[in-house]
Amino acid sequence: MSKIRVAIAGYGNIGRGVELAIQQNPDMTPVSIFTRRDPAGIKTATGIPVFSLDNVADYTDKIDVMIICGGSATDLPVLTPKLAGLFNTVDSFDTHAKIPEQFARVDKAAKAGGHLALISSGWDPGLFSINRVCAEAVLPAGSSYTFWGRGVSQGHSDALRRVNGVKDAKQYTVPVPAAMDAVRSGSNPELSTRDKHTRECFVVAEEGADLSRIEREIKEMPNYFADYDTTVTFISEEELKREHSAIPHGGFVIRSGESAAGNKSIIEYSLKLDSNPEFTSSVLVASARAVAKMAAEGKTGCITMFDIPPALLSPKSPEELRASLL
Amino acid sequence: MSKIRVAIAGYGNIGRGVELAIQQNPDMTPVSIFTRRDPAGIKTATGIPVFSLDNVADYTDKIDVMIICGGSATDLPVLTPKLAGLFNTVDSFDTHAKIPEQFARVDKAAKAGGHLALISSGWDPGLFSINRVCAEAVLPAGSSYTFWGRGVSQGHSDALRRVNGVKDAKQYTVPVPAAMDAVRSGSNPELSTRDKHTRECFVVAEEGADLSRIEREIKEMPNYFADYDTTVTFISEEELKREHSAIPHGGFVIRSGESAAGNKSIIEYSLKLDSNPEFTSSVLVASARAVAKMAAEGKTGCITMFDIPPALLSPKSPEELRASLL
Repeated sequence: MSKIRVAIAGYGNIGRGVELAIQQNPDMTPVSIFTRRDPAGIKTATGIPVFSLDNVADYTDKIDVMIICGGSATDLPVLTPKLAGLFNTVDSFDTHAKIPEQFARVDKAAKAGGHLALISSGWDPGLFSINRVCAEAVLPAGSSYTFWGRGVSQGHSDALRRVNGVKDAKQYTVPVPAAMDAVRSGSNPELSTRDKHTRECFVVAEEGADLSRIEREIKEMPNYFADYDTTVTFISEEELKREHSAIPHGGFVIRSGESAAGNKSIIEYSLKLDSNPEFTSSVLVASARAVAKMAAEGKTGCITMFDIPPALLSPKSPEELRASLL
Repeated sequence: MSKIRVAIAGYGNIGRGVELAIQQNPDMTPVSIFTRRDPAGIKTATGIPVFSLDNVADYTDKIDVMIICGGSATDLPVLTPKLAGLFNTVDSFDTHAKIPEQFARVDKAAKAGGHLALISSGWDPGLFSINRVCAEAVLPAGSSYTFWGRGVSQGHSDALRRVNGVKDAKQYTVPVPAAMDAVRSGSNPELSTRDKHTRECFVVAEEGADLSRIEREIKEMPNYFADYDTTVTFISEEELKREHSAIPHGGFVIRSGESAAGNKSIIEYSLKLDSNPEFTSSVLVASARAVAKMAAEGKTGCITMFDIPPALLSPKSPEELRASLL
């Protein structure tokens, strides 16, 4: 069987992670990067060629799946429908509330082009979502909980950096151990936003800035911090670089349910990731394999991870999977 | 949409669990139990009718999915192919080494009858298998580990009861905490059978039996106990009934992998079950929903959990799943 030809649109943390992850999957071959920047200015990790996104339509017969690595706020709502008209695609659209809109846009474009487009791959949405669905289906009488962390939230770190007098900052989302213990006990607790997570902020202030004003502004920031127990620790730029350069993340999906006879069950799924973007990239690459297989079977339109039979994520044959992993 | 009509072949722990689990799923309706015993002698938990398995062919137009609840050693190799020729079916065939044989037999029968047959549903094989496949696909460079317990192994308890002088017994399979810690650290340890699990045996001896001979015979029993650190505790019949009547189980599937850039990830899936048979039954019932949907789309032959898109396990519509659980 010939290798799956994968291209990458967008070359940030995720695009680079996808390029690297393809190296670990011998049934795939990386074709090229497409960028909106000047291709000449980009040096790829593995030396694959870089082309302008303006010319992407010239490559439709050279690419089996295009993995789109852009931001959910402004990039993917435009880019995924556009590219799904030309290629089979995978994106990591992660604005949960706007998934139905993205699905509708991408479904229309992909069907018009006769292609298959997977949206919202990754770990949340993605692997966590799969586990929420399976656990709820198996334990219909029960409650589901998702905890995130301990890990760096890019959105919250950005919010810190927008505070006047903040030079740089990193924010960690931290699940509350007591809340997790309560969930694991099977007591189906009602948990508020504050009960579930705390937020730890490491902030480098501009010289002479009013630290107590910065701390107050952070802790009172609506949506981001006001609903949480938030700690603010001022550190030096050197310490931030030394101790907080990594991008770890992770989390837990736990469902606690009860049988009709009153017996309890706990299903727990967890991730512990040294590099959030590299792990997300690994999921996108495995997903691209499934998209290539489903597209080859004639499937078109938009799908999510909910529509993918697990076997298709694997490079192994159905026979091999049944014999070795069932 | 009309309810999915589910029947149950075999009325032991699992059959009864399926009957109860259907009560928690309002999109399903239980039709009847089929048994090889005298139907008049069986009182069902919810009052659904019991018929003789001899007459099962008379009910082909009344049943959407037949859940087959029998033993993997002798029942399912015969019963599943037979019933898959007449109905869409689900079984929990769990002799891992013989799954390819069962698949071939059932696939042939199901295709001949124009039906869809899911084999090896449950949690291992089943939910654990799905997690092994997904985790390996996402982290191709790494190692996977499955731990079972703490829980009652029926097969090992049966083996204890076959020892001369043993009146009754229960065996618990227990994962070794140090081994699990090593796996979770990401060090990809090589673990022997003895490293991973211990076996705790609670034994009621016949009056006057030679306890040291019984203990020695147990600890030296090949396949079952010789390769493990095994403890034997003699207790009274009353204590066995009082403390060891439940059938809890559970376990862990852990994959530890590394990205091309050297960053580590740990994926862990775990179950903690007060009642092993009732949880297995819950998985069978959710699986029956997927089988009904896939059969309605015209799919025939044998499948496993690897072939089921997660969305089909849920009673929710694709739109609802995308809006609420993705």
